[in-house]
Amino acid sequence: MAAARATLPHPHLPAPSWRTQLKPVPRRVVAASAAPSPALTASLRLGDVIEAQQFDRQALNEIFEVAREMEAVERGSHGSRSRVLEGYLMATLFYEPSTRTRLSFEAAMRRLGGEVLTTENAREFSSAAKGETLEDTIRTVEGYSDIIVLRHFESGAARRAAVTANIPVINAGDGPGQHPTQALLDVYTIKREIGRLDGIKLGLVGDLANGRTVRSLAYLIAKYQNIKIYFVSPDVVKMKDDIKEYLTSQGVEWEESSDLLEVASKCDVIYQTRIQKERFGERIDHYEAARGKYIVDRKVLGVLPKHAVIMHPLPRLDEITVDVDSDPRAAYFRQAKNGLYIRMALLKLLLVGR
Amino acid sequence: MAAARATLPHPHLPAPSWRTQLKPVPRRVVAASAAPSPALTASLRLGDVIEAQQFDRQALNEIFEVAREMEAVERGSHGSRSRVLEGYLMATLFYEPSTRTRLSFEAAMRRLGGEVLTTENAREFSSAAKGETLEDTIRTVEGYSDIIVLRHFESGAARRAAVTANIPVINAGDGPGQHPTQALLDVYTIKREIGRLDGIKLGLVGDLANGRTVRSLAYLIAKYQNIKIYFVSPDVVKMKDDIKEYLTSQGVEWEESSDLLEVASKCDVIYQTRIQKERFGERIDHYEAARGKYIVDRKVLGVLPKHAVIMHPLPRLDEITVDVDSDPRAAYFRQAKNGLYIRMALLKLLLVGR
Amino acid sequence: MAAARATLPHPHLPAPSWRTQLKPVPRRVVAASAAPSPALTASLRLGDVIEAQQFDRQALNEIFEVAREMEAVERGSHGSRSRVLEGYLMATLFYEPSTRTRLSFEAAMRRLGGEVLTTENAREFSSAAKGETLEDTIRTVEGYSDIIVLRHFESGAARRAAVTANIPVINAGDGPGQHPTQALLDVYTIKREIGRLDGIKLGLVGDLANGRTVRSLAYLIAKYQNIKIYFVSPDVVKMKDDIKEYLTSQGVEWEESSDLLEVASKCDVIYQTRIQKERFGERIDHYEAARGKYIVDRKVLGVLPKHAVIMHPLPRLDEITVDVDSDPRAAYFRQAKNGLYIRMALLKLLLVGR
Repeated sequence: MAAARATLPHPHLPAPSWRTQLKPVPRRVVAASAAPSPALTASLRLGDVIEAQQFDRQALNEIFEVAREMEAVERGSHGSRSRVLEGYLMATLFYEPSTRTRLSFEAAMRRLGGEVLTTENAREFSSAAKGETLEDTIRTVEGYSDIIVLRHFESGAARRAAVTANIPVINAGDGPGQHPTQALLDVYTIKREIGRLDGIKLGLVGDLANGRTVRSLAYLIAKYQNIKIYFVSPDVVKMKDDIKEYLTSQGVEWEESSDLLEVASKCDVIYQTRIQKERFGERIDHYEAARGKYIVDRKVLGVLPKHAVIMHPLPRLDEITVDVDSDPRAAYFRQAKNGLYIRMALLKLLLVGR
Repeated sequence: MAAARATLPHPHLPAPSWRTQLKPVPRRVVAASAAPSPALTASLRLGDVIEAQQFDRQALNEIFEVAREMEAVERGSHGSRSRVLEGYLMATLFYEPSTRTRLSFEAAMRRLGGEVLTTENAREFSSAAKGETLEDTIRTVEGYSDIIVLRHFESGAARRAAVTANIPVINAGDGPGQHPTQALLDVYTIKREIGRLDGIKLGLVGDLANGRTVRSLAYLIAKYQNIKIYFVSPDVVKMKDDIKEYLTSQGVEWEESSDLLEVASKCDVIYQTRIQKERFGERIDHYEAARGKYIVDRKVLGVLPKHAVIMHPLPRLDEITVDVDSDPRAAYFRQAKNGLYIRMALLKLLLVGR
Repeated sequence: MAAARATLPHPHLPAPSWRTQLKPVPRRVVAASAAPSPALTASLRLGDVIEAQQFDRQALNEIFEVAREMEAVERGSHGSRSRVLEGYLMATLFYEPSTRTRLSFEAAMRRLGGEVLTTENAREFSSAAKGETLEDTIRTVEGYSDIIVLRHFESGAARRAAVTANIPVINAGDGPGQHPTQALLDVYTIKREIGRLDGIKLGLVGDLANGRTVRSLAYLIAKYQNIKIYFVSPDVVKMKDDIKEYLTSQGVEWEESSDLLEVASKCDVIYQTRIQKERFGERIDHYEAARGKYIVDRKVLGVLPKHAVIMHPLPRLDEITVDVDSDPRAAYFRQAKNGLYIRMALLKLLLVGR
């Protein structure tokens, strides 16, 4: 939502309480910021979901409460359509394909009675292909819809869209940048599965250098008390120093380990990730060396505490073996489903408030 | 629907009577079966539409009765939306494009008041492209929808999806395998056009070797009494022995003929098919020799009985000349429309029962 | 709509008054016409939107009145869904991508409570790719929907579709041919922005040779009184003689000018267009020479009358500088929004009448 709307409330947008924590800033100031950074948190405008950092504990709690309510709405919607977002129109503007994320948002909108305009491949959008700026596209699409869900290949695109639009924008992933709804559903899953967020012991496994999900998760979980994080990854894809330093500055304990079994025996959550072949370019040898190193299999289940869970942002290849799926501690498909509830909650909060 | 649900009935799934004819089997047993075969009929789980063989005469009759009711629902839906499937969400997961089939399913869902999540090109689905298994994709998509319509390029894919999913799966064509809703609409069209199914004389024309529609149709029509089938095809694409042997075993009379006019003069139904160029590979000469051999034109209409009809699964190229279209016996566009009614009937039966 | 329906009124289609101005003609006669031409106006069948020429002043006025009503409907639809087109199903059959136009039509349908079947890329439509004719595709799709919105790469395709279909067809652009809804929204925008259509002074700028929008606009505006048109374009893309002759024959004053500032100082509307690189083929030098010649920038705003507006069909590259956007006279995003209202009006008029 553009700044103008932040001071002049939209009639259809009773503000959820967490909005009031964020200060509106003049449009040009935000537009001038080249790259998103934690320092910008306070300057994020109201009514958009752009980056994980914009949420504090209170905002997270409110979103999670609404997500929990959404579980009941979704169960009730089979055979009796919810009318919460009836008459609202969401545009999914995807500049790169991500069917899982797109379907999840579109299901969320429909489960609440809303309607959807779909663009699966906006990059070949005739206008974009002809050289139209993202800003011009947004100004057109906002005339046809009530909320825009944007997936883009460029870091910072969601912020540019939000600065431009007079309707809410949700970032559904912008290149190597942010994917805040994934981060929210990850934290929500920990809360739903373990029952709390303070005092969690979390093992992050796999590609910690390139995976934006583990980076965002580390960032968000740091808002809670007595967190301990173990990093388990092949040498070529170790967690980067910026996150380590951030965790330290927030008083979060962390350590690196090369012993997945030992880590698994001590954790509440093992968060496994895919080694992303596409990040290794020509170095297929590095990829092959990295991918088989830390596999979650029945041996890991053997040492994992009974109350603990295995998470994964999906898609998975063979970094979790299929025989793990039937164990009740395999939480990754429940985690995917939580994406639906989180997105329902955000759509409700942004369009009609609590 | 997975086996678990077969014993624990889904609250939204009052079982249509034809379900009770099928025995649920343990999941692993079904999963272990490498290729679908008639012998597996009895082991098909409840609540999915996977292959033409799963339906007996009673099931077919029930589906056709509901399809007939759907004609009235569809006519009434212009200007007064049906609410039969209100609140239900169908995911069309298409790993290869088939716009005719997709639009037909999506129209069916909407004509009944339901909602749709569309994937036109799931093969480039970012997850599938990254190596995610079909099973993992299904486990995610079932969290977002109430029923999955799957089109896939691999034979057996629909069965694998059905074994995995806890919601109903409809096979919308899996490679050279099955396309059961096409088979159902073909048989329904014969019943609607001729008024009966017993005692039908049926000419199957064109590519009988590669066309899965004629194979499925031969299979299904064999369930009726006093059927006579004529095969009329170029030598390179003759009907294969498995179907001929099956027909013989079921007491269905059949013969091969190279005289389309003579066959047309004796039939109730001439079912023409396209010679599929893509099946000939490098042998364009074979394709060219085959394609012009048996054309349905005004000469065929001249000998065709007054009550008989011409059918075609579409798309057609020039194997039926355009001047045939205006003859009332040209049933192929009515046949395409019947696909809507059959799919409405199946969606209703699977989601809310009769 | 096919001729048959024109004499036998469709129960869902109370005829808007402008239909009665058009005479139905036998199907074959229309089908035989190779290329659309003004002379065919009177032979256009009822209930389709095929070309700008089919509308006279009275028809335009009625469409614009309904479009104005649609502004209120659209504003009211957030949170309380309109039911005007409830139960109606629109198929968007796009043989070339045009996301702006597609989203605009789909938003229009949904804002009125209708449903949509989408085909983003019908050219790879398996049937079209296999050689199915447009006519056969239309006969199938009309069985699944209540109205077809067709975008095609071939001039005349929309007319062929309309001749075939028994349901209304709207031309959403057919190659170098027509794009009548764009023409309607352009004229509607002039009326909304300036307050009248008679006595307008209009500057058409940019690519006047290849731009079908300026050609259609010139054609439509000629129906009004005391119009003056200025053509401002690089030599290689000058307005063609057919339009000039037509304007002269209609008593419309026009002149060519190479001085954009002088023209801007005298006009009510400056209609800027993009120089279309794709039309220049190998002659990149011609393109480069043409594209920078006439830019709408703050200098133009400096001489433009206070009441005047800048229009553009979008997408724009740099032929209007971004610093123009914040001027209240920059009407191009309002113009894009008007496309929604015009399409809502047409859908309502074609499906349920006034």
